Amino acid sequence: MRAARLHAYTEEMSEALSIDDVPRPTADGPDDVVVEVQGAGWCQTDNHVVEGMWTDYVPQELPLTLGHENAGRVVAVGENVETVAEGQPVICHPVRTCGVCRPCRQGEDMYCENVAFPGLTHDGGFADSLLTNERAVIPLPDGVDPTDIAPHADAGITAYHAVKKATAELNPGDTAVVIGVGGLGHIGIQCLDAMSAADIVALDLKPSARDLAANLGARHTFDPATDDVPAEIEALTDGTGAAQVLDFVGADETTALGPDIAAPGADHHVVGYGGHVHQPSQTLVDGEFGYRGTLVGHYTELQELVALVDRGDVDLHTTRYDLAEINTVAEKLEHGEIDGRAVITP
Amino acid sequence: MRAARLHAYTEEMSEALSIDDVPRPTADGPDDVVVEVQGAGWCQTDNHVVEGMWTDYVPQELPLTLGHENAGRVVAVGENVETVAEGQPVICHPVRTCGVCRPCRQGEDMYCENVAFPGLTHDGGFADSLLTNERAVIPLPDGVDPTDIAPHADAGITAYHAVKKATAELNPGDTAVVIGVGGLGHIGIQCLDAMSAADIVALDLKPSARDLAANLGARHTFDPATDDVPAEIEALTDGTGAAQVLDFVGADETTALGPDIAAPGADHHVVGYGGHVHQPSQTLVDGEFGYRGTLVGHYTELQELVALVDRGDVDLHTTRYDLAEINTVAEKLEHGEIDGRAVITP
Amino acid sequence: MRAARLHAYTEEMSEALSIDDVPRPTADGPDDVVVEVQGAGWCQTDNHVVEGMWTDYVPQELPLTLGHENAGRVVAVGENVETVAEGQPVICHPVRTCGVCRPCRQGEDMYCENVAFPGLTHDGGFADSLLTNERAVIPLPDGVDPTDIAPHADAGITAYHAVKKATAELNPGDTAVVIGVGGLGHIGIQCLDAMSAADIVALDLKPSARDLAANLGARHTFDPATDDVPAEIEALTDGTGAAQVLDFVGADETTALGPDIAAPGADHHVVGYGGHVHQPSQTLVDGEFGYRGTLVGHYTELQELVALVDRGDVDLHTTRYDLAEINTVAEKLEHGEIDGRAVITP
Amino acid sequence: MRAARLHAYTEEMSEALSIDDVPRPTADGPDDVVVEVQGAGWCQTDNHVVEGMWTDYVPQELPLTLGHENAGRVVAVGENVETVAEGQPVICHPVRTCGVCRPCRQGEDMYCENVAFPGLTHDGGFADSLLTNERAVIPLPDGVDPTDIAPHADAGITAYHAVKKATAELNPGDTAVVIGVGGLGHIGIQCLDAMSAADIVALDLKPSARDLAANLGARHTFDPATDDVPAEIEALTDGTGAAQVLDFVGADETTALGPDIAAPGADHHVVGYGGHVHQPSQTLVDGEFGYRGTLVGHYTELQELVALVDRGDVDLHTTRYDLAEINTVAEKLEHGEIDGRAVITP
Repeated sequence: MRAARLHAYTEEMSEALSIDDVPRPTADGPDDVVVEVQGAGWCQTDNHVVEGMWTDYVPQELPLTLGHENAGRVVAVGENVETVAEGQPVICHPVRTCGVCRPCRQGEDMYCENVAFPGLTHDGGFADSLLTNERAVIPLPDGVDPTDIAPHADAGITAYHAVKKATAELNPGDTAVVIGVGGLGHIGIQCLDAMSAADIVALDLKPSARDLAANLGARHTFDPATDDVPAEIEALTDGTGAAQVLDFVGADETTALGPDIAAPGADHHVVGYGGHVHQPSQTLVDGEFGYRGTLVGHYTELQELVALVDRGDVDLHTTRYDLAEINTVAEKLEHGEIDGRAVITP
Repeated sequence: MRAARLHAYTEEMSEALSIDDVPRPTADGPDDVVVEVQGAGWCQTDNHVVEGMWTDYVPQELPLTLGHENAGRVVAVGENVETVAEGQPVICHPVRTCGVCRPCRQGEDMYCENVAFPGLTHDGGFADSLLTNERAVIPLPDGVDPTDIAPHADAGITAYHAVKKATAELNPGDTAVVIGVGGLGHIGIQCLDAMSAADIVALDLKPSARDLAANLGARHTFDPATDDVPAEIEALTDGTGAAQVLDFVGADETTALGPDIAAPGADHHVVGYGGHVHQPSQTLVDGEFGYRGTLVGHYTELQELVALVDRGDVDLHTTRYDLAEINTVAEKLEHGEIDGRAVITP
Repeated sequence: MRAARLHAYTEEMSEALSIDDVPRPTADGPDDVVVEVQGAGWCQTDNHVVEGMWTDYVPQELPLTLGHENAGRVVAVGENVETVAEGQPVICHPVRTCGVCRPCRQGEDMYCENVAFPGLTHDGGFADSLLTNERAVIPLPDGVDPTDIAPHADAGITAYHAVKKATAELNPGDTAVVIGVGGLGHIGIQCLDAMSAADIVALDLKPSARDLAANLGARHTFDPATDDVPAEIEALTDGTGAAQVLDFVGADETTALGPDIAAPGADHHVVGYGGHVHQPSQTLVDGEFGYRGTLVGHYTELQELVALVDRGDVDLHTTRYDLAEINTVAEKLEHGEIDGRAVITP
Repeated sequence: MRAARLHAYTEEMSEALSIDDVPRPTADGPDDVVVEVQGAGWCQTDNHVVEGMWTDYVPQELPLTLGHENAGRVVAVGENVETVAEGQPVICHPVRTCGVCRPCRQGEDMYCENVAFPGLTHDGGFADSLLTNERAVIPLPDGVDPTDIAPHADAGITAYHAVKKATAELNPGDTAVVIGVGGLGHIGIQCLDAMSAADIVALDLKPSARDLAANLGARHTFDPATDDVPAEIEALTDGTGAAQVLDFVGADETTALGPDIAAPGADHHVVGYGGHVHQPSQTLVDGEFGYRGTLVGHYTELQELVALVDRGDVDLHTTRYDLAEINTVAEKLEHGEIDGRAVITP
């Protein structure tokens, strides 16, 4: 079958992956599930993997098929699999977990002590078929198209997970600031709107992104390049500040913004990455302020997000690309030229 | 009356404060309470105030009487005060709050929109008497000596507040790491021991501090200068890491330690300050790791800490100094030569 | 001034209260606030007070002016009052609290150790003016009419408080059942819809109430007299049951329904009262099921509810009645003939 | 092998079970684990099963081998089992779970949609060997004897689970009331003492049980038959009441006690069963009081309890009986003549 593989780390996105012919995976293990990929989202993390940014964090051997936002149709199952069957449309939680370690028992799929992460540590979904397991697949409700929903497998669940943590701290009348209205941010706004009665403020450099934010439920949008964001937030909140900050960018400039716009006791959720957090300890102490990293999300949270999609509460903005165009997608995202989310269709 | 006042910011602790003669405060407002100070703890924050480190964070006019860890005997009350009376021994929550703003309603005394912070924004307790208000004073149980308990008014409540947040995330069998076994840390260990069944690991450069930690309930102690702390914690936790980190130092070296010793999803509570937090965003994301600042604590938490003292669960290690020796105390703390907590007795 | 007072407990609602001439209250205490009443909601609890059902629970002396859902215009303030001024439109939290006891510090206004409850323990708002205090009043945003919003002072806050507790346990895709779509229930549905993405199922005997529920956000409505509610809920939830039950009725039949419709671990929030809870302990154990009483709500929750009203998320269905018609209102509610909420306008 | 089986429901405990010869279980399924039973606790629930009290709640076919508190040595494992091996000493979580349904993902083992409960729905551990699965077994630390720890598999985890819920609401200085100091209660007291700084009050009719409670950490003990418990609790708490009530009995008299001793907002955790909860809805509303059923506990909570045992924080009081004496044990427990917990040793 065809698979888009990384052979060497590079900054040159136009040469990121090559389309290779590789053996089709089979469901040999009792819990294995093979999925015919119908959609696989391209994510900023794919660019980071191509650049080698994950080698310090996870075990990774090249060549590697990328793609960790996958949905499709089950084509083979291991002997013990009972919850899905051949032919069933599914979305794939990004990691394969063991189900018996303590983190798995606590629902913390990302902390599984025996985790495999297709697209980062094992072959992923930019291919005709993907090997995953029973604990990773969620059957789709009738009428939900695998290609359309694929990016929720990582972009969606990551945004949802951060929003769920923020929502637990948000009361009606509070202000939540969303930094970055791209693939994740535009989902985050919709989740916030569905799950809380907070007033949403969205920040983005691009006018089209700010327009999208306004359409999806943001009450106010600002351009951090030209607007005095701290002054605007102070005015909107009668001097209190934002109760929660969701940073889908994670650059030096965006993490630096947190303490200037946050209410006492607020959290700055670091979802995007690339830059640093850097502050005097005293700033964290004085504002009882926190930087809280957020990593993908739980299997059960992906179920909840599928429920939101099924209710009509969350819409994905996607553009489809053929597997052959994959390096073009890599380049476009690097230059901020993708609106919504690019989905690769093998 | 006598009051130890700061007239100019300085790095020279031997000349920090001067003992001035000032008018004795009176209970003019209906909620005012005047306390004859019987003990006032000297805190690392006092050194920071002397150095001018708080001028960017709070309004501050000189000359200023320092001292924000106060206990003593009520000597005058305003006309509306009902919960304390003249002669009653009390400990003073460090801030005076209004009781009608939204943060006060939520129990978030430190976020009061009309807060006064004696010793930082108004005259404090290194003096014969202190002006505070009804919402700040907690009557002491029989047998609790105001001079002995005074440092709990800030050191104690700050340690307790951080521990309470950590405890909410700690299960039996988890490991909690305490960094710095000084005035705050030695209280924090006792609170952790009383309120959780976590295994406590304490880090300190000084052998006497590590011995103290072991006596107060730490299961393991390490010297970060000579021990390989990440390796030790990894071994103790079967590779999982510490579930919660309580950083009573807040220096560059201690905040940097967090990600290397933390379990997935762990919090690094930044209690001490002086240095910076500095990490790639990716490190926070990959470990779902958080830096969470912590600022003093709630009035109700000081009540709870007094209950712990009354139960015999928390002992303070203090040394008494006369008001006239106050600059000596400032110098000694600057050089790490105070064991436990210095209490000024006017 | 005029005041509608209870002189003797009675089952006869047509003779419940008499309109007496009484002295107008004055703001003698430093925290006192006198409000010219512009709207006062009539509540099922008023019927219960008339019947003498509260004598075992609170201290109560007759004659007593009823009315605990009040809004209006400030006409006098005590010398210390700073947050409101004469002329300001306000809604009144139903209780006057001291602000210095431990429950007040924790935001638990209803547990205040020195509480006064106008309309139950002191004279209430079915009168030209009401005496309350600074800690009880919330300024209204521009454009919010005191007469329209008055029932939120108790019906609204009580529904909101219960919903907020339920919402903390509700995930997208979960089912929440609302029992009783009257004065409280119709607010509860709107709060649920604004603050969660749960699927709402509403139960009521009256077709008009079920229609209202459907218009306000309920996905499904059933008539417990004719529908097999447990079977319907089982079908809707794939056999799991409802994650949370909000019982705005509290009759024997409604509390009995809980265990038959609840998912494992669910809560049955008892908001209305009149009947009993009665179950084998084993039923609670087997389903890890809970009956949780709910009592009015916090001052800060009333602020949050006012924010929901200001956002347009919650609409009140009210009918206005003159003070002289008050016993007619009492009778109508007793016979279930009030749609939405009756507001008395002095 | 030998197995103590129930052939017919009966009130006559002296004839409860018969020792039959049955086939030894084998590890046919890939996740199966066979344990040679070294200890199996006899529980009040076993009496209830014998009486037929569980037929309305779970599917149950006779004859059935009872015994749901099991520990022993692994003697056979299925082909996929990786976390335990033959020869390993283990304690068995009471239920076998699927690991793929939503409740399993959330750590809610007791709510598993495909649950099997050996001793209630399948053959249990009053036998030479027990069939369970990989998700149910927890390896024991060195030095922990399976026979001694067996009752923690149900009595222990059930007490721990209830205490953990209560502890989340308990602050230092609060009072927690434990009703019933038998097999569960004496574990509950120790867990409370290890995990909180609440003041523990224990109630029991038997002087020996009250003495045990005092030795294990209860500050005060009362005899509900002769002491005026509400008055005593009111005096101990300065009129506030108990913050949490843990009812290990669940009889009519004990559930009725809750509202009379509870602080506003308190929970009455219903752990034991046999009687009813019966109260006016108004009582729940007025005190914002809740009855919360509690059902066994999570696998991860049994891990945490094993950690408490390993730390020396929880001691079990057990008496060993031979399998042949099993009906004598049933009779003794029925008459309240077992101190601590009876462990059957095949």
